[in-house]
Amino acid sequence: MIKVAIIGYGNLGRGVERSLKQQKDMELVGVYTRRAPESVQTEGAQAFTMDQLEDKKGEIDVCILCGGSATDLPTQTPEWTHLFNTIDSFDTHAKIPEHFAKVDHVAKENQTTSIISTGWDPGLFSLNRLYAQSILPVGQTNTFWGKGVSQGHSDALRRIEGVVDAVQYTIPNSEVIEKLKAGEELALAIRDKHFRECFVVLGEGVDEEAIRNEIITMPNYFADYDTEVHFISQNELNENHKAMPHGGTVIHTGTTHEKTKQVIEYKLQLESNPEFTASVLVAYARACVRLAKEKHFGAYTVLDIAPKYLSDRTDEELRKELL
Amino acid sequence: MIKVAIIGYGNLGRGVERSLKQQKDMELVGVYTRRAPESVQTEGAQAFTMDQLEDKKGEIDVCILCGGSATDLPTQTPEWTHLFNTIDSFDTHAKIPEHFAKVDHVAKENQTTSIISTGWDPGLFSLNRLYAQSILPVGQTNTFWGKGVSQGHSDALRRIEGVVDAVQYTIPNSEVIEKLKAGEELALAIRDKHFRECFVVLGEGVDEEAIRNEIITMPNYFADYDTEVHFISQNELNENHKAMPHGGTVIHTGTTHEKTKQVIEYKLQLESNPEFTASVLVAYARACVRLAKEKHFGAYTVLDIAPKYLSDRTDEELRKELL
Repeated sequence: MIKVAIIGYGNLGRGVERSLKQQKDMELVGVYTRRAPESVQTEGAQAFTMDQLEDKKGEIDVCILCGGSATDLPTQTPEWTHLFNTIDSFDTHAKIPEHFAKVDHVAKENQTTSIISTGWDPGLFSLNRLYAQSILPVGQTNTFWGKGVSQGHSDALRRIEGVVDAVQYTIPNSEVIEKLKAGEELALAIRDKHFRECFVVLGEGVDEEAIRNEIITMPNYFADYDTEVHFISQNELNENHKAMPHGGTVIHTGTTHEKTKQVIEYKLQLESNPEFTASVLVAYARACVRLAKEKHFGAYTVLDIAPKYLSDRTDEELRKELL
Repeated sequence: MIKVAIIGYGNLGRGVERSLKQQKDMELVGVYTRRAPESVQTEGAQAFTMDQLEDKKGEIDVCILCGGSATDLPTQTPEWTHLFNTIDSFDTHAKIPEHFAKVDHVAKENQTTSIISTGWDPGLFSLNRLYAQSILPVGQTNTFWGKGVSQGHSDALRRIEGVVDAVQYTIPNSEVIEKLKAGEELALAIRDKHFRECFVVLGEGVDEEAIRNEIITMPNYFADYDTEVHFISQNELNENHKAMPHGGTVIHTGTTHEKTKQVIEYKLQLESNPEFTASVLVAYARACVRLAKEKHFGAYTVLDIAPKYLSDRTDEELRKELL
């Protein structure tokens, strides 16, 4: 049995606990948290304080880091990779090279293995971009996200003065997707690919039109998109907008020889974004332990990992049953 | 530049020649054929007889074998793997373990590398079955093929006495696909997943109803399916049914924690089946040469190959641009 520890217990950490129950060759040995362990409501796992983790070297095969990319993972992944094999879901695309270099250095020095930036984007979507572009180098890849909640955009709404709570949905333009799937070549602006829909709870007496204007003109987040804003009550937000579905599509439209169209599409429809992301992390945790056993130390990403390492089946079984 | 030879020049071989023109780091050094080289109409490549290939050891980085799975590849792949790194598209699923063992033995003895059974099924569809089942072990995977021409079923029609020519389309049941994509769990019989449509040219005076009956009751090929048969002229067959589009879908419907549905879908829509298959072979040819350079000798399948080996970009570029 592969012994797994969870570091950080929010939605993603809970998702990992649930996913591990579905895997026959893995067991959860503990949840490590910055909170008081007795205050953490797990689904059966024992909770410990973060500083109890240091003594567990040798008892844990891999740690799955479930913190956030903004402040937790940039320090936590290098820190824990000193002692353990690690998996994270670091998803700040622009900072991946820097994060990779830091973790790779620590892992090589300490003979540990780390797979960073797993999940579905970066992660499974990255794989599909790579496969499609390698096979059909003459072509165009487009990634669409949603319909789903963007945490970053929801946070941006909540930082506006006068906003009490808010949820933002990213919605892909399904007409454009259909055209790409039909093999059309399109020059797409940001505005053509996604819409944004905001559900906002305002404080007493706050002016709706002023807030709406502040939202739709906000640079980077909303100004480049067609954005719809709905003002609703906190009750309605709690009842209808606290689920976490998500998904998306990677479409590669390539041509072979003159105008022969070839379309590759990879699509996810997820009722729970954190549970699915957690399931990806867990499969790569298995790969991480195998790499470490083969003494492949250092940092890796999903692009470096042979698919068979994700499975609990033998090479022979895979060739017979799945190929 | 990676130096590539094509062995066998039918639709697939021509597809490889076309695909190589799209890859910047690869060049075609020759087409090797059992026919008289001067009778082979390539699109620019020089053609040679098969026995001229033996002298080219050291001048070719990888041979792409473009023969058929029934009689060519079972002998050709082991034979040429004595001298060269090789790629094939061996697709007789039941015989893959045996083929793998034979090629693996030759490759290890001769310090060459071979990637067998590439293409889209086996190949890209196999990858997607593996990724999906590893990530969501509680779930159901269904593979649908078509709409496209099945060579095996078309051959079966042509073997019937009285049939002059014929083409068979495999057509997936789109209603069932929509239900699976909506997350429904279905117990599917063979008949539920695909229809079969046959376009048949008969000899003079042959009885249509007798042939129709022979087709729809043919064991293994048609008896288990709903099959429609159309009798048409040779002219009509030539005009409307000689293109080679194909495609298919792998759908995995999984659940995480209780009843949370997560759907992963991988879909191909191909205007030319041989050109797309050829493009997959070419990308894996690059991977094959890299594995050989790293002294990873033996036989491999797509399940063993890290995605990055398919690309001509560096690891740093891939992390920066695609992750």
